[in-house]
Amino acid sequence: MYESDRPHEACGIVAAYGVPSVANLIQAGLFSLQHRGQEGAGIVVSDGRSIRSHKGLGLVNDVFLPGRLAELPGHLGIGHVRYSTTGSDRIQNVQPLVAECVDGIWAIAHNGNLVNAQALRRMYQEAGAIFQTGTDSEVLIHLLADPMYRNRPRRVARALMELNGAFAFVLMTSTSIMAARDPYGFKPLSIGKLGEGWMIASETCALNQLGAEYLRDVQPGELVVINEHGLQSSRFMDLDKKRMAQCVFEHVYFARPDSLVFGQNVHNVRMKLGMRLAEEHPVEADVVISVPDSGNSAALGFSQRSGIHLDYGFMRNHYVGRTFIMPKADARARSVDMKLAVIADVVRGKRVVVVDDSIIRGTTSQRRVSALRAAGAREIHLRISCPPTTHPCFFGIDFATREELVAADRSIEQIRQVTGADSVGYLSIEGLLSPFPDAANYCTACFSGDYRVDISAVQGKDDLEQVAPMLKFDP
Amino acid sequence: MYESDRPHEACGIVAAYGVPSVANLIQAGLFSLQHRGQEGAGIVVSDGRSIRSHKGLGLVNDVFLPGRLAELPGHLGIGHVRYSTTGSDRIQNVQPLVAECVDGIWAIAHNGNLVNAQALRRMYQEAGAIFQTGTDSEVLIHLLADPMYRNRPRRVARALMELNGAFAFVLMTSTSIMAARDPYGFKPLSIGKLGEGWMIASETCALNQLGAEYLRDVQPGELVVINEHGLQSSRFMDLDKKRMAQCVFEHVYFARPDSLVFGQNVHNVRMKLGMRLAEEHPVEADVVISVPDSGNSAALGFSQRSGIHLDYGFMRNHYVGRTFIMPKADARARSVDMKLAVIADVVRGKRVVVVDDSIIRGTTSQRRVSALRAAGAREIHLRISCPPTTHPCFFGIDFATREELVAADRSIEQIRQVTGADSVGYLSIEGLLSPFPDAANYCTACFSGDYRVDISAVQGKDDLEQVAPMLKFDP
Amino acid sequence: MYESDRPHEACGIVAAYGVPSVANLIQAGLFSLQHRGQEGAGIVVSDGRSIRSHKGLGLVNDVFLPGRLAELPGHLGIGHVRYSTTGSDRIQNVQPLVAECVDGIWAIAHNGNLVNAQALRRMYQEAGAIFQTGTDSEVLIHLLADPMYRNRPRRVARALMELNGAFAFVLMTSTSIMAARDPYGFKPLSIGKLGEGWMIASETCALNQLGAEYLRDVQPGELVVINEHGLQSSRFMDLDKKRMAQCVFEHVYFARPDSLVFGQNVHNVRMKLGMRLAEEHPVEADVVISVPDSGNSAALGFSQRSGIHLDYGFMRNHYVGRTFIMPKADARARSVDMKLAVIADVVRGKRVVVVDDSIIRGTTSQRRVSALRAAGAREIHLRISCPPTTHPCFFGIDFATREELVAADRSIEQIRQVTGADSVGYLSIEGLLSPFPDAANYCTACFSGDYRVDISAVQGKDDLEQVAPMLKFDP
Amino acid sequence: MYESDRPHEACGIVAAYGVPSVANLIQAGLFSLQHRGQEGAGIVVSDGRSIRSHKGLGLVNDVFLPGRLAELPGHLGIGHVRYSTTGSDRIQNVQPLVAECVDGIWAIAHNGNLVNAQALRRMYQEAGAIFQTGTDSEVLIHLLADPMYRNRPRRVARALMELNGAFAFVLMTSTSIMAARDPYGFKPLSIGKLGEGWMIASETCALNQLGAEYLRDVQPGELVVINEHGLQSSRFMDLDKKRMAQCVFEHVYFARPDSLVFGQNVHNVRMKLGMRLAEEHPVEADVVISVPDSGNSAALGFSQRSGIHLDYGFMRNHYVGRTFIMPKADARARSVDMKLAVIADVVRGKRVVVVDDSIIRGTTSQRRVSALRAAGAREIHLRISCPPTTHPCFFGIDFATREELVAADRSIEQIRQVTGADSVGYLSIEGLLSPFPDAANYCTACFSGDYRVDISAVQGKDDLEQVAPMLKFDP
Repeated sequence: MYESDRPHEACGIVAAYGVPSVANLIQAGLFSLQHRGQEGAGIVVSDGRSIRSHKGLGLVNDVFLPGRLAELPGHLGIGHVRYSTTGSDRIQNVQPLVAECVDGIWAIAHNGNLVNAQALRRMYQEAGAIFQTGTDSEVLIHLLADPMYRNRPRRVARALMELNGAFAFVLMTSTSIMAARDPYGFKPLSIGKLGEGWMIASETCALNQLGAEYLRDVQPGELVVINEHGLQSSRFMDLDKKRMAQCVFEHVYFARPDSLVFGQNVHNVRMKLGMRLAEEHPVEADVVISVPDSGNSAALGFSQRSGIHLDYGFMRNHYVGRTFIMPKADARARSVDMKLAVIADVVRGKRVVVVDDSIIRGTTSQRRVSALRAAGAREIHLRISCPPTTHPCFFGIDFATREELVAADRSIEQIRQVTGADSVGYLSIEGLLSPFPDAANYCTACFSGDYRVDISAVQGKDDLEQVAPMLKFDP
Repeated sequence: MYESDRPHEACGIVAAYGVPSVANLIQAGLFSLQHRGQEGAGIVVSDGRSIRSHKGLGLVNDVFLPGRLAELPGHLGIGHVRYSTTGSDRIQNVQPLVAECVDGIWAIAHNGNLVNAQALRRMYQEAGAIFQTGTDSEVLIHLLADPMYRNRPRRVARALMELNGAFAFVLMTSTSIMAARDPYGFKPLSIGKLGEGWMIASETCALNQLGAEYLRDVQPGELVVINEHGLQSSRFMDLDKKRMAQCVFEHVYFARPDSLVFGQNVHNVRMKLGMRLAEEHPVEADVVISVPDSGNSAALGFSQRSGIHLDYGFMRNHYVGRTFIMPKADARARSVDMKLAVIADVVRGKRVVVVDDSIIRGTTSQRRVSALRAAGAREIHLRISCPPTTHPCFFGIDFATREELVAADRSIEQIRQVTGADSVGYLSIEGLLSPFPDAANYCTACFSGDYRVDISAVQGKDDLEQVAPMLKFDP
Repeated sequence: MYESDRPHEACGIVAAYGVPSVANLIQAGLFSLQHRGQEGAGIVVSDGRSIRSHKGLGLVNDVFLPGRLAELPGHLGIGHVRYSTTGSDRIQNVQPLVAECVDGIWAIAHNGNLVNAQALRRMYQEAGAIFQTGTDSEVLIHLLADPMYRNRPRRVARALMELNGAFAFVLMTSTSIMAARDPYGFKPLSIGKLGEGWMIASETCALNQLGAEYLRDVQPGELVVINEHGLQSSRFMDLDKKRMAQCVFEHVYFARPDSLVFGQNVHNVRMKLGMRLAEEHPVEADVVISVPDSGNSAALGFSQRSGIHLDYGFMRNHYVGRTFIMPKADARARSVDMKLAVIADVVRGKRVVVVDDSIIRGTTSQRRVSALRAAGAREIHLRISCPPTTHPCFFGIDFATREELVAADRSIEQIRQVTGADSVGYLSIEGLLSPFPDAANYCTACFSGDYRVDISAVQGKDDLEQVAPMLKFDP
Repeated sequence: MYESDRPHEACGIVAAYGVPSVANLIQAGLFSLQHRGQEGAGIVVSDGRSIRSHKGLGLVNDVFLPGRLAELPGHLGIGHVRYSTTGSDRIQNVQPLVAECVDGIWAIAHNGNLVNAQALRRMYQEAGAIFQTGTDSEVLIHLLADPMYRNRPRRVARALMELNGAFAFVLMTSTSIMAARDPYGFKPLSIGKLGEGWMIASETCALNQLGAEYLRDVQPGELVVINEHGLQSSRFMDLDKKRMAQCVFEHVYFARPDSLVFGQNVHNVRMKLGMRLAEEHPVEADVVISVPDSGNSAALGFSQRSGIHLDYGFMRNHYVGRTFIMPKADARARSVDMKLAVIADVVRGKRVVVVDDSIIRGTTSQRRVSALRAAGAREIHLRISCPPTTHPCFFGIDFATREELVAADRSIEQIRQVTGADSVGYLSIEGLLSPFPDAANYCTACFSGDYRVDISAVQGKDDLEQVAPMLKFDP
């Protein structure tokens, strides 16, 4: 996970209300969501009167060193962990964003990608607005501040209606927290009850670990407001069942196995994907191994369904962090995979099924096949618990560009050659959707190109790329 | 200097054009202006196409650790050192501010205080604008982005015309740097020539140390633009000689002795103030000592004019920085002045004239008088090289509040009692202005209450204070 | 792993010779051994003439920030990762130790515990020696410097002969590296070939990941010297087969699954322990889960032998590091286990076998049983892949004190009650040794009290504890 | 001061007894002595039972961040600030050194240089001792631990008797502090009374700033022990008045002007040196300026005696610290002196007397003469308040090597040419000693080559240099 050759998720978000020392709780929640973003973290809290914040680059525990939390008193707040697409440190882009409008301060934290952010940004800029970050999330604050929405009832709902794309938002003022999901339901967002208080988080694992009771998901198109009057729900967009587009990659790769995502336990789903994979691509072999950790559940499922023994063929070094600098001076060392080591005894002389969650560029798979061969594996059969990734995602997943996607214009046989495996088997789209009773509600665009959201604005992505040097400034 | 009991200056600013590795030059320039702000520093550069920035909390050399500058390639740029009024770290308020308007990115750095910032802020907020910092400088970017100015010739000049108060600004786009001074001429800003390139700085000491040749000051009401077409000057506001308001405190306290400020060498001016002080408040004494470092030049002048020997009665520890935490556990230590030590041999048994640049709250003076007495001084005569500070400054000097100003409603005799000295002599306003051929051009409002700028907007300072908790957010 | 309630291993060591930019290689080797010690790391290198070192507190990648390695040129060197028994930072105790004797500089790094260190320390101190660290390793340098050994042939061998207890040492001078294991063979130490050069490491995983070819283990009682003349082996102590005492806990818990330890693959051994555990303590159940990561292999073995399905019932958060400060303000959060989360779907309504590697105090097991119950597990059967830990280890494992060992004086039924499980089954000593053809060569003292080394010197451990406040100074 | 071209002092030391929270006091004391060493700092304290320490590289306030002191409880302790001769960070060499002997723990801190340290080191090494630092101070702990001294009365005195060279030591055990000065009296060391407790410091400025009452100096050859029985004085070496060798450079350059050193106020002495300099080298000129800060007092004296007006021609930037990295990319900037700026108005068209404390290599003087010329000075007359520095110091001053000493084999006229001044005048040795009633007690070897200590052992300095690469290891 989290290699340059893996898909990247944008963020994890948390909000809480009615909890003493809320910053501690939010920090712990962000820590549980650390897998969703390791490049930056921020917390904003309020004691009902003053809003305070702290954010920084790095892991949650590095940003919030001992002592920091004590400077963030309050009983409501929101938090964010962020993945950024470049290695440079852009403190300005770390969320939550905080800004003062005429009637007070808003803080927002966003998971997802808005396909009309650029259009809205230009529209507001034409009217005189300035943007101080490179994030697409900043447009929401401009919408909230816009008199057109500001001075009418249901201001937040009206603002959210203008957004198109994938989003799970948590927002706050000095007295309320809010949570909203786009009407397609791309991104997960769950509500929990914690004593007298409330907690919102991208994944239920954050609720569980803090002892909060999972109530339900924020619904697609729903806006939830929590304050001294309790929780109020409203709908800013009708649910169009035909347009639901829950991100199946959350199940395949992003989410933590112990989370409920879109109502299904992630580990269970992955087990079933592994079972289906065994049915779709059976193979005679001696052992099934996983590419840890994201392939673990599917490998277990594959083993159970195929009857081929599971074993642990790769050992993962969990100390690899973003600060690790690979030795450069020694050519031998350079080609080495410091994250995964082969347990040679497990694969030597064996016919090995390797279960992985996806192949993006193919280079990592190639390196691992080669490491297994060097350790003496007799046959290597790659089994991938999703279909070939052939199309870019415009909704928050940072795949490699289309040119870099190994499956974009290669046959399975060609992919096999790239990886060096003896066989490669991908799960079918049907297989991928088989664990879900609400299969039609899932977006599979990255496998099929069937985008359920109008991306023509983004197809002006050429424009977007032209302005990219501008957008990617580091203010 | 730079004690809690001293007046605080807001900032130092630098800009440069046409210099290879411009970030190095700007860093060195900021380093020369470090006395104007120690809490934060930032540099923004452009290579003509991309804008890059880095900023952080702390001293210039701490923010720009080795290696940082290499990440800021370019031949034009601006920089800022900042004093902030609280100890908390508010990275968002560190300048230069950078923001994207519809037609590109602007970066600005500001020294001074805008009396109508709050009004402009509310006006833009009413119209839907959001503010992401607590600085008054942010309004200028909103003005620049406003279609009313944006789409007309002389956009920057038009925007600057809207500002009222004290300002020296440097601005930049990806291809030009700009510099402007308010029409009152409150804050200093000088232009230098450096080889084929140009350099702008708050004080000439920055030009001198980098080998730049001092050309002239940016004129009050002048906008200077420097780009590939060279330097163009224009005027955004006519100079109203009657309204000139150069800050005399720059000479008294803020500026470095080796700088030319408003056309006069600071050290020379201070020498003359000291001489005049000796004339206005003669005293029989054995020795003249200075409160270093800001009192040094005036003490020398006092000595020369009075004929009383100069000596060094205080030793200053220059290692005191903002991170120094006074020992708390030991009551003895707590009352100790770690910055200034008395050289007892110099004052023992003597009648001592102590020349200081100002008395703000009186507590520091009291502590020092008491230290001199403990060291055996027989008589202590405080001589202050400016008049009693009786009124607040709305133009960028962060005095204590009026209630805290010891001179606000005390007679000289009462002040003498507070400090414990045997006599206290302040320079008269006439004396203060005597070194300046253009004396009428100076603002002396903090001594006289005679504000040359309409501060009624600020008198709505009550408003400003009401919203202060909001403004002082830490996003 | 690495919880306060787990046994603690002292160290990992690495040495290399004949490798350009050897510091890079040693860093990568230490990184592979990071699981053996996370509190401090150090590297000492030589270019054949000058010896340079760097060490610090923290993880390998934190101590050796980018740029550091470039300051350590050379082609031979040694390295160390360290676990220290307290949270305080004692930079002085971080190894390798470096000291100058009359004939040059020695650096040493040690894994293990010397039972006669205290006696030797006192002996040398009586003679006038001074000790600047609290480590038992320092005595070896005194031995090397002692004229009694220094001036005779086979100096290092003679010095090593004086040591009693558990040790794997790497040593270096400016021109040679050395490696030695105690004659009991307590601690693992392996030799690899890397191109023209050599590499020594505590575990073979470090060799494998760097592409070094595993040659063989350093033999118990063997001293290996590597320099420009190649590798020379000699024996400083005859091997007494009857006294062999390889640490079985290396297999049970410490070593990485992909390492060969004492000639056996760790993962394979653990699998077999799990199988044997299933035979010794069968149970009717629905699912087998592991306490990750150290229980994974045994759980797999248990599942395979018992025929009960394996599943993943615990999710481990790998971002937990030493800097994580648990929120204190919220009582709810305090009781939370941030490292392991239950996947409720896996255990709900099930009869669950939980395979763990050991129970030390019982408090962690109790917490996890309770978490499983809360998640709905119907029955919980703890299966431990080693016998009850009843005796302290004097050879380098930092168990809790005997009083804290839950098994020290409790029956299995009593332990069951402490943990709250429905049943508890420990592996027998015979079962523990069953995977090893050379079973007699293993130390099982922590289960049996049968110490193969005379610990009467340590029984003077009372003495040792008396001087402990002295030894534990932090110079 | 503290430039690469200046003489370097080794250290400042502090000790205190009978003070609650003694670490706070010692930190404040070290802060007052920061000018004596900026590269490292350490504090060791005892609560009468346990000894605790903390040390690190950098300034006092950087090493002892808030919170650190709370971890150092106790009522007695010692501290040290250190200058090291290389930029590399050698944490091992930072003092106080702490080591355990058979009968307890000793901590020592040293200012000075032992000429027989190398011989003692070799002697102990021959006997089997190991050395873990590159400092000459380590031998004292070996002496203290040596049974020859350890088991006899007056152990510390006996150990001190073996040392030859320059030293001021503070030592401590868990219950006592000690202080000693070499019989030549090279280095200053003073005793103060602080309430019921005691304080020892290199300079009285540390006593003054903490409110301690100066009692007297530790006498040359005296050992002072302070513990629950109060202060006991004894003599480990008779005072040989003929051999007294107080370091005159303490007065010329090292010590703070507000300190009493060897019974004389430093500022007063420097004033007198300046006066004498005016007598010995009169010149017709318009203004006297100082090279701040070390030349300030002498310049004042020169001005008073000559009647030539004093003025401030150089402005010093006090923010220059060890972390400042001069911009490299711009050639213009590279030649710039960021520490001193000329105040051109002061020197333009003038005949200028420049008073400096010493000339070491001449390069700095050359640069400053050149800066004054560039600023328009008509004539430049260097006046140096000590004689030409022609010989190396073996007692703790780290001059440049003899080859680098500009005065080593150049005439005054040649030195004038090197510096580019119009005239150069050095003080005579007689003049240098004229302020001291006990002039015969001063060492002037660096001006005369007349060493009062047998340096033949050091003449084996060739040996010392041969082993230097070994000694300078960085363990």
